[in-house]
Amino acid sequence: MTIGEEITLDALPLREDLRGKSPYGAPQLDVPVRLNTNENPYPPPPELVADVAEAVRAEAAELHRYPDRDAVALRQDLADYLSVSTRVVLSEANVWAANGSNEVLQQILQAFGGPGRTALGFEPSYSMHPIIASGTRTEWLPAPRRADFTLDTAAAAEVIAQRRPDVVFVTSPNNPTGGSIPLAELRAVLDAATGIVVVDEAYAEFSSQPSAVGLLADYPARLIVSRTMSKAFAFAGGRLGYLAAAPAVVDALQLVRLPYHLSRLTQAAARAALRHADATLASVHKLAAERDRVVEALAGLGYDPVPSDSNFVLFGRFSDPHAAWQSYLDKGVLIREPGIEGHLRVSIGTPEENDAFLEASKEVSR
Amino acid sequence: MTIGEEITLDALPLREDLRGKSPYGAPQLDVPVRLNTNENPYPPPPELVADVAEAVRAEAAELHRYPDRDAVALRQDLADYLSVSTRVVLSEANVWAANGSNEVLQQILQAFGGPGRTALGFEPSYSMHPIIASGTRTEWLPAPRRADFTLDTAAAAEVIAQRRPDVVFVTSPNNPTGGSIPLAELRAVLDAATGIVVVDEAYAEFSSQPSAVGLLADYPARLIVSRTMSKAFAFAGGRLGYLAAAPAVVDALQLVRLPYHLSRLTQAAARAALRHADATLASVHKLAAERDRVVEALAGLGYDPVPSDSNFVLFGRFSDPHAAWQSYLDKGVLIREPGIEGHLRVSIGTPEENDAFLEASKEVSR
Repeated sequence: MTIGEEITLDALPLREDLRGKSPYGAPQLDVPVRLNTNENPYPPPPELVADVAEAVRAEAAELHRYPDRDAVALRQDLADYLSVSTRVVLSEANVWAANGSNEVLQQILQAFGGPGRTALGFEPSYSMHPIIASGTRTEWLPAPRRADFTLDTAAAAEVIAQRRPDVVFVTSPNNPTGGSIPLAELRAVLDAATGIVVVDEAYAEFSSQPSAVGLLADYPARLIVSRTMSKAFAFAGGRLGYLAAAPAVVDALQLVRLPYHLSRLTQAAARAALRHADATLASVHKLAAERDRVVEALAGLGYDPVPSDSNFVLFGRFSDPHAAWQSYLDKGVLIREPGIEGHLRVSIGTPEENDAFLEASKEVSR
Repeated sequence: MTIGEEITLDALPLREDLRGKSPYGAPQLDVPVRLNTNENPYPPPPELVADVAEAVRAEAAELHRYPDRDAVALRQDLADYLSVSTRVVLSEANVWAANGSNEVLQQILQAFGGPGRTALGFEPSYSMHPIIASGTRTEWLPAPRRADFTLDTAAAAEVIAQRRPDVVFVTSPNNPTGGSIPLAELRAVLDAATGIVVVDEAYAEFSSQPSAVGLLADYPARLIVSRTMSKAFAFAGGRLGYLAAAPAVVDALQLVRLPYHLSRLTQAAARAALRHADATLASVHKLAAERDRVVEALAGLGYDPVPSDSNFVLFGRFSDPHAAWQSYLDKGVLIREPGIEGHLRVSIGTPEENDAFLEASKEVSR
C-alpha cells in the first residue's frame, strides 16, 4: 500500500486549465532503432567522454558549494562558439544558458509574457511553445503556415500587425516539418513585430540558411535567438539550452531565473563538450547526407517527404498515422507521431538505422 | 563594442511587476571564510567524488540520448533514503525531484497556484517563497511570526481560516531564523488549511523534530514535504531538490514540469551521492555541536543569538547590520544580511571557520 494512493488527481486543488491534460512527452521505449526525438545517433567520441568525466571529477570535489550563479565561463565559451560559427562577434553578456532550451523559453515567457499577454506561433511547430505559454499563463495565439508547411511571411507580418503579440515564436528550421527561413524573410517578421521575436534555432547547425544571430545588431531590442546542445552537439542527456540577445535581455532573464539553476556538473560538462565541438559537429555533414538519402528513398517508395533542412523528415501520407506508427514499432523502429494529419516524423539515424527504417517503410500500410 | 549594449532594460517590453527589481542572490565573493549560504563546509569524501566521476563517465557515453524523463531510479533511491531516515515507508510514486528545491517549489506553484490564486507564508522565512510566487504570478500573502520568530500556530490557523490560501508554506527548521516546528503544531496548520500545505524541510537533517513525512498518511490530499540535497548532503553544487507527497501530487507536477528537466549527469551524480549518505550525513552531528558552541560563544560575547535547530544562527543586535556585515567581510568572513532589522545570519562552518567568525565577532561594532 503506497501512502496516499487513495487520493486521485481530481481530489487535488489543481489549477483548472490543467484538468484532464496529459504530461508532454514521446514514449520512452527500449527498441532497437530509436528515431523519435531528433537525437544525434552518434555517441560522443571517447575523448569527449574522458574530458567530461575528468571535468566532473574536478568539480565533484566542490559539490558542497553552490555553482557560479551566473555561469560566466560557460556563457563565454558559448559566445565563442557562436562567434566562430555565425561570424558575429558576441560576448558573454550576449549569452544566457539554462537546463535545456525549454527552460530558456520558459524564462523568456516569464519575463516578457504571462497573464494578460500573448505569444504567437506558426503551426505546426515545436509543440512545447504553446505548452510553455500555458505554463506561464501566456495566452497562445496560433497562426497558420502554408499547406506545404512553409511560412508565408507576408501573411505572418499581417497577423503580427493585427494581433500585436508580446512574443512571436519562429522556429527555423521548423520542427516537425523541417524547413528553414531565409534571413530576408525573418526581417519581414521582425519589422512587423512590436514585441519580442524568438527565433528557435534548435536545429540551426543542420541548416543551409545563415543564423538569425546575424540580425541581432539590427534588432537588438526585439530579437532573441535560442539554441540547444541537444541536437547537433549530441548533448541531449546533458540538458543545455542557450540564447543570444542584447545584454539587457540577459539582465531581464536574471530577474526570473531560479538562482543556481545550472549545476556545477552541467556547467563543467557543457564546457568540456564545447571543447570537442569540431569532433561532434563532424556528424552534421554525415547526417545531412543521410537525410537527403532518406528523403530520396522515401520518395522512391511513393511517400511524400517534406523538404528538410534539419536532422529529421516529416513524411506522408497515411490514412491512419497511428496504425502506421505502431506498425513501425512492431518492426523495432520507433518514430514520432507529430499530430499532423496523414504524417509521421522520422529522425535521421546512423546509415544502419536509416536502412532499418526504410526497410520497414516498404511494409507499412498507408 | 558588445552587440545591443545600447539597449537598456527599460527599452524592453518587460512585464510591469519586474521593473526596478534586482536579481535574487547573495554576493558570490572569493574570501577565506564563506559562511553566507548555509552550505555544508565539509567537502564530499574522496570515495563519493570517485563514485560520482565514475557514474558520470558511464552516463557520458550516452549523452547523445535524452535522460529518463521520469527519473524513476533516482526517485526510488530518494524514497529509500526517506523511508530509512523518517521510518515511513515511501515508494518512488511518492517522490518527485527537480533541479534544486526552488524548481520543485516553482512546479508546485505552477500546478496549485498562479493568477487568481494565493500563497501564504510566515515571515521572516525563506525569501525565495515570495519570489517564486511572483514568478508564477501567485498572489503572496505574508503572515507574521511572533517577535521571537517562533510560529504562533493558533494565530497561523486563524489567518489560514480567514484568508483560505491555495498554498501555505511552513519552513521547518525556518530559514533564516533557525527554529523548527513540532508535528503537533503542524497538525494545527494542516487542520486549518483548505489548500496545499508545503512544509519546506531544506534543513530537516539538522533538526531535533521528526519530519513532516510522518503526517503524509493523515493528510494525503493536503501535505507536500519538500527537501534538498544542498545542505546536509553537501550537494549544493549538484542541484537536487525533491519532495514527498501522495502519488497524485506527483502526477500533477508532471503536467507542469519541463520534459527531461533532470539531466543524465544530475540523476547519476545524485544517485552516487545517495550511496554515500552515511559518510556525508556524519557531518550533521559535528555541525550541530559546532552550532551549539557558536550560539554559546555569541551569547558570551553579548550577542543575542536566536535558538537554532539548523546549520546556521541568526543573531543580533546591530544598530547598522549592513555596516557590521561589511566589517565581517573586511576581516575575511562572509556572512549573510537576511534583511531582518538588527540581525545577521551566519552559517556553521568547520571549527576553524567558526573560530575565525567568533574572533571577528569580538571586533565588529554593533
